[in-house]
Amino acid sequence: MTSLEQTLAAIRPADPQAVADARAHQDRLTKPRGALGVLEEVAVRLAGAAAASPPPIPAPAALAIFAADHGVHAQGVTPWPQEVTQQMVANFLAGGAVANAFAAQVGASVTVVDVGVAADLPPARGLVVDKVAYGTADLSRGPAMTGRQVVAALEAGIAVAGRLVGQGARCLVTGDMGIANTTASAALICAFTGHDAAEATGRGTGVDDETLARKVEIVRRALRVNGLADPAPGMTVAEALRRLAAVGGLEHAAIAGFILGAASLRVPVILDGVIAGSAALAAAALAPDAVDHCVAGHRSAEPGHALALAHLGLRPLVELELRLGEGTGGLLAHPLVCAAVRVMHEVATFDSAGVSEKEA
Amino acid sequence: MTSLEQTLAAIRPADPQAVADARAHQDRLTKPRGALGVLEEVAVRLAGAAAASPPPIPAPAALAIFAADHGVHAQGVTPWPQEVTQQMVANFLAGGAVANAFAAQVGASVTVVDVGVAADLPPARGLVVDKVAYGTADLSRGPAMTGRQVVAALEAGIAVAGRLVGQGARCLVTGDMGIANTTASAALICAFTGHDAAEATGRGTGVDDETLARKVEIVRRALRVNGLADPAPGMTVAEALRRLAAVGGLEHAAIAGFILGAASLRVPVILDGVIAGSAALAAAALAPDAVDHCVAGHRSAEPGHALALAHLGLRPLVELELRLGEGTGGLLAHPLVCAAVRVMHEVATFDSAGVSEKEA
Repeated sequence: MTSLEQTLAAIRPADPQAVADARAHQDRLTKPRGALGVLEEVAVRLAGAAAASPPPIPAPAALAIFAADHGVHAQGVTPWPQEVTQQMVANFLAGGAVANAFAAQVGASVTVVDVGVAADLPPARGLVVDKVAYGTADLSRGPAMTGRQVVAALEAGIAVAGRLVGQGARCLVTGDMGIANTTASAALICAFTGHDAAEATGRGTGVDDETLARKVEIVRRALRVNGLADPAPGMTVAEALRRLAAVGGLEHAAIAGFILGAASLRVPVILDGVIAGSAALAAAALAPDAVDHCVAGHRSAEPGHALALAHLGLRPLVELELRLGEGTGGLLAHPLVCAAVRVMHEVATFDSAGVSEKEA
Repeated sequence: MTSLEQTLAAIRPADPQAVADARAHQDRLTKPRGALGVLEEVAVRLAGAAAASPPPIPAPAALAIFAADHGVHAQGVTPWPQEVTQQMVANFLAGGAVANAFAAQVGASVTVVDVGVAADLPPARGLVVDKVAYGTADLSRGPAMTGRQVVAALEAGIAVAGRLVGQGARCLVTGDMGIANTTASAALICAFTGHDAAEATGRGTGVDDETLARKVEIVRRALRVNGLADPAPGMTVAEALRRLAAVGGLEHAAIAGFILGAASLRVPVILDGVIAGSAALAAAALAPDAVDHCVAGHRSAEPGHALALAHLGLRPLVELELRLGEGTGGLLAHPLVCAAVRVMHEVATFDSAGVSEKEA
C-alpha cells in the first residue's frame, strides 16, 4: 500500500465509550451541568478522538505552514504580487509574521513546508522542502494538479504530521501561505458541498467589487471546465482525489494530508481558516472519520468558511473577524482547547470537594 | 481624600496620541490591513489605556475571585444552597475549581477575597479576608448594603488591585463567587441601563421556568422598593453609589472597585461575565473613563450580560456559551489579549521584511 492508502486505512472514528465516559465525568465536576458551554463538547470530542477519558492534554502544539503558488494568479484574482508567497515564507523563517507571534504566545513550534512555491528557496532552519511543483496550473483552464501531483502533496502533508508527532507534538495546527489561495478554496468548497460560486467566494485579503466579481466568475468557470457538478454523497476516493486535483492548491492537498496524518495517529488537529476548511472537506471526502479528530479553531471573515464548517458539522471556537490565514486563527484556539481538556484532569468532583449539589 | 476619591480622581481616559500611533503601526505590519479583525482593536485599545504604543505585554495576569453571600437567597431565586459559596471558596483555595484549571493554563495567579461570605472562613494561603458583612440584606425589601458598606467593599477591591499590581501583575482578571449573584446582577443592569427586569434576568446556573419567573418578579420588586427609576445619563457619584448599594452584592461593589483600581494604575482589566459586566456598569457610572481600561473577556449565556456590554460599548472576545463565573471567561480571553499586543512588538513591517505591498 502507498502511504496515502495506509493512512486512510488507519483512521478510526470517535470511540463511543470514551465519549460516554467523558460526558458522565463532566457532569460530576464542581460546576453546574453544561456551564462550560462549547468547551464541554470540545473535551468530549477530544476524548472520543483519543479513545480515552480524560484525553491527553493537547500540548505542545506544532504549527505547519504549507506554502504554494497558484496558476490562477494570472487571472487577476488578487491585488497581491505572486512573489509575496516566497517573501512571506522568508518572514515566517525570520520569525517576523503574525503566525510567529501567536505561536510564541501559545508555545507552539513553527514549521514551514514548501510544497509548491514558484521559486527555489534557500535552505533555512524550520523550512521543509518537499516541492511537488512550481505552483499549480490555472484551475480555470483545466485541472490545477495532475493525479500524481495531488497524491504527492497529500503524502507530503502526511509525512509532516508524522514527523511532528514523532518529535513530541500532541496537537497539530494547520497553516497556509499562497497568494490567490482563497480562490482555490472557494472552488473546493463548491466542488465538495455543492454551493454556488457566488455563495462561497469572498474578498480574501481585501479585493474590490470588480475583482470579487471576476473571482466568482473564475470559480464558476473552474467548476464548469473541470466537470464538477453537484457532489454526490458518499463520493469515492478516486472522485475525491479528482476534485481536489482539479481545483485545489498544492497547500490544500498537503493540508488535507496533514489532517489525515493527524487523524491516523489519533492526534487532534486544529483547523485554521477557509484554506484549512476547504482542505478538510477534501480530507473528509477521502476518510469521513477524519473529521472526528478535527477542531475548528476559528471562523474567518470569508463566507465560504462558514459553509465548509457547516458541511463538516464543526463549530468554531474563535470568531474575531480574522482573515489572515497562516494558522493564526488555529493558534488562538489552542489555549481554549487545552483549557477544555485540563478541566477533565484537574477539576474536583462534587464528592471529592465536599460541595453541595443543586436541590432537585 | 478617601481611597475611593483618590482612585476616581486618578483615572484618565485613553490617550488619543497612543491610539493614533497604534493604528498607524498596525497598518505597516506584514498583513493585509484589518486582517486581525477585532484583535487589532484590542491592541489599539490597550495602547490608549497605557498611553503607549506599543502597550506593555499584559502579562502576567492575576485573577481575583471576590466572594460574598446575598440576602435575596432567602427568596428562592436559585436551587443551590447558600453554603455552596463557602464550599467553592474552599475548592478555589484547594485548586480544584475550573477557574484554577484555566488560571494554570494561562499562567495567572489566583487570589480569593472574602468581602462578604456568610461564615467565618479558616485562614488559607491565597485567601484575603476583607469582610464587610456576613452577606447583604435582601435587595427585594430595601437596600442590600448601607452607604458605609458599599464604600468599604469598593475600597476592598481597590486595595486588591493595588496589591496585585504591586506584586507584578500587568493584567487583572475579575472573578466572582456568590450563590444568588445573578439576581443582583440583573437588578444592577436594570438600575444602570434602564432595561426591564424581564430582559435582564436569566437562568443563572440553570433555574427552571417557575424560578425564573420568581427571579424576574424579585428584580422588579427590588427596583420599585429601592426607588430605582430610569437612570439619568451623567448620574452623580452619590446616585451611582446609592444604586450600587441598593441592589448590588458585596462582590459586585468589590469588583467595581477592582476595575477602578486597575484603571487608576493604567493596568488593563479583563472582565469576566455578567457579574463583572454589571459591576462595570457601576464603575463606569462612578468614573466613565474607567471603561477605556476594560476588555470584555467573554459573553456569557445570561441575557443581561449582552445588555451590559452594549451599554459599556464593549465587544466580547470569547463567545462559547459559558455560564460559570469565577473569572473563567475572563481567563480564556487572556491569551487572546496577549496575542493582540504581541503583534505590536514582534511582527515585522513591510519595509523591514522586504515584503511587497498590495497593488493599488
